[in-house]
Amino acid sequence: MSVTSRDVARLAGVSQPTVSRALRGDTRVAEATRLRVAEAADALGYVPSEAGRSLVTRMTRRIGIVVTDLTNPFYPQLVGPLHDELEKHGYRIMVFAERTDSLTAVEHLVDGSVDGVVLLTTTLGSRLPSELTRRGVPFVCLNRESGSGLDDAAVVDNELGGKMAADHLVELGHRRIAGIFGPEDTSTGRDRELGFRFALAEAGIAIPVALTAHGPFDFDTGHAEMQRFLDMANPPTAVFCGNDVVAIGALNAAVGAGARVPGDVSIVGFDDIPMASWEAFRLTTVAYDLSDMAVSAARLLVRRLGAQADDQPQREVMVPSLIVRGTTAVPCS
Amino acid sequence: MSVTSRDVARLAGVSQPTVSRALRGDTRVAEATRLRVAEAADALGYVPSEAGRSLVTRMTRRIGIVVTDLTNPFYPQLVGPLHDELEKHGYRIMVFAERTDSLTAVEHLVDGSVDGVVLLTTTLGSRLPSELTRRGVPFVCLNRESGSGLDDAAVVDNELGGKMAADHLVELGHRRIAGIFGPEDTSTGRDRELGFRFALAEAGIAIPVALTAHGPFDFDTGHAEMQRFLDMANPPTAVFCGNDVVAIGALNAAVGAGARVPGDVSIVGFDDIPMASWEAFRLTTVAYDLSDMAVSAARLLVRRLGAQADDQPQREVMVPSLIVRGTTAVPCS
Repeated sequence: MSVTSRDVARLAGVSQPTVSRALRGDTRVAEATRLRVAEAADALGYVPSEAGRSLVTRMTRRIGIVVTDLTNPFYPQLVGPLHDELEKHGYRIMVFAERTDSLTAVEHLVDGSVDGVVLLTTTLGSRLPSELTRRGVPFVCLNRESGSGLDDAAVVDNELGGKMAADHLVELGHRRIAGIFGPEDTSTGRDRELGFRFALAEAGIAIPVALTAHGPFDFDTGHAEMQRFLDMANPPTAVFCGNDVVAIGALNAAVGAGARVPGDVSIVGFDDIPMASWEAFRLTTVAYDLSDMAVSAARLLVRRLGAQADDQPQREVMVPSLIVRGTTAVPCS
Repeated sequence: MSVTSRDVARLAGVSQPTVSRALRGDTRVAEATRLRVAEAADALGYVPSEAGRSLVTRMTRRIGIVVTDLTNPFYPQLVGPLHDELEKHGYRIMVFAERTDSLTAVEHLVDGSVDGVVLLTTTLGSRLPSELTRRGVPFVCLNRESGSGLDDAAVVDNELGGKMAADHLVELGHRRIAGIFGPEDTSTGRDRELGFRFALAEAGIAIPVALTAHGPFDFDTGHAEMQRFLDMANPPTAVFCGNDVVAIGALNAAVGAGARVPGDVSIVGFDDIPMASWEAFRLTTVAYDLSDMAVSAARLLVRRLGAQADDQPQREVMVPSLIVRGTTAVPCS
């Protein structure tokens, strides 16, 4: 049996164009109508052909989400809100779980299989954004940005967040402070470090080279660097970490070494992922609304999909706040 | 400038068909040739059109990964190995991050946009596998299965794992034992519970109704049920959890309530996700090689893509083992 949209239209009691619009999630179709059409299509086993449709309409109603590190619990937190917000506008999401930010890995983004792209793990100086622009594929940077100043982006004020963490540690009386910063080729890593160092400098504090570390935003980075610090004759009394996953790695290394947190060493993270508030961690961290940031990115992209090519780039910046939990206190010594 | 595959072929010094084959990841093309072609394509800014190609070859060289809960850290662990193994066979993966396992949500899987599908979060009795079969879309179930016995599947022996957890607690001398099991409509939830209960029954132990709980495989389930247990006049001395995320929720609730683990209550998980070995948790759990299981699924799917429709379904079953860490001990009382 070969079911056509005509059959679905008859069963649902609507016109054939309404069936097409309803099934591609066009928001001009009333919700009740959309459901009736979906039920009729389901009952008849009708599925429209994406490949055929995309050559006709040049629209896939699909958005690609590019992320290089899904095992970092930060990113999955953003996928749900992106899914829900884009669905409201009639788009489905597909996650491209890449290994690197290289251009070759994302060739399939510019081949007509998606209408637009959300970049979650852009590195500074990445060629990908400019390549997407050149090919006319609308995109938005979420969380990280390329630094060109040419892209739509939804980000947090990373520099302000870094400053908040520094001010908190200085107020508690810490002077010997370490930093386990993120990768230097990310806007988040760079700007958090910058804000943190500037605020410390204003208080007359510099981070010694031996207490400075950079590495991937993962558990192992925090774990290894904290072990190194704790092995020192004169360890730091406080450690700022580039994100919560790094901070939780550092915290676990402290537990493993028998060091008390915050008794022996204070730890501050960044992002306030759900894990940060677990009783075993109670991490002091720089917080902002991850869900709001994702929704902002989705809206910027939807706007861009309907915009003129020469519309100015727009940047949404979330304002962070410091959440003091159980991993920071006045220094012991 | 409109670059064609002919230009790429000239620059790379190969034939035009070789360019097509190399760019769609055909494994018959030597790695050195593939790299040369990719570099030439990159240099010229050439990208083949997926939409056009798919109508010609009826092959997208794309595999859809369907998962309903990316924030569960278990699933992202499987995505990396799937990506790498399928890439070896010339396939790219796209993750469909769905909200539910419903048929409507996955209509786009049967519309020709992917060659095959890996189902990560199938529920028992789900219509999705039979619908994919009816439409001729090859698929494999990974981790969970539908229970029809008709599907290719890569799973762990959940019943044996449940038995191992029970035997361990019985040997330690526990008699008042609780279970925070997963959802009853999942093969993993059902079979782990079955194996656990059977082994307890053989030791003459039954789980009281008040100490039995079912819920989603998430942190909150473990957290809420453990809080309920600890509020009892006569709490359990040991708790088996349907997976590690549930167990870590339970562990955090114990920390929050000031209960010692394992002094006051022992906890056992299932899966051995990386988090289970963190120093703050040191979770005793049922382990198996997550990466091997994902690779097995990828291979089953590749085999199915080249198989006859009436080839028998194949099932790869991983053998689990118990890893005893710091959350289990003899009962205190």
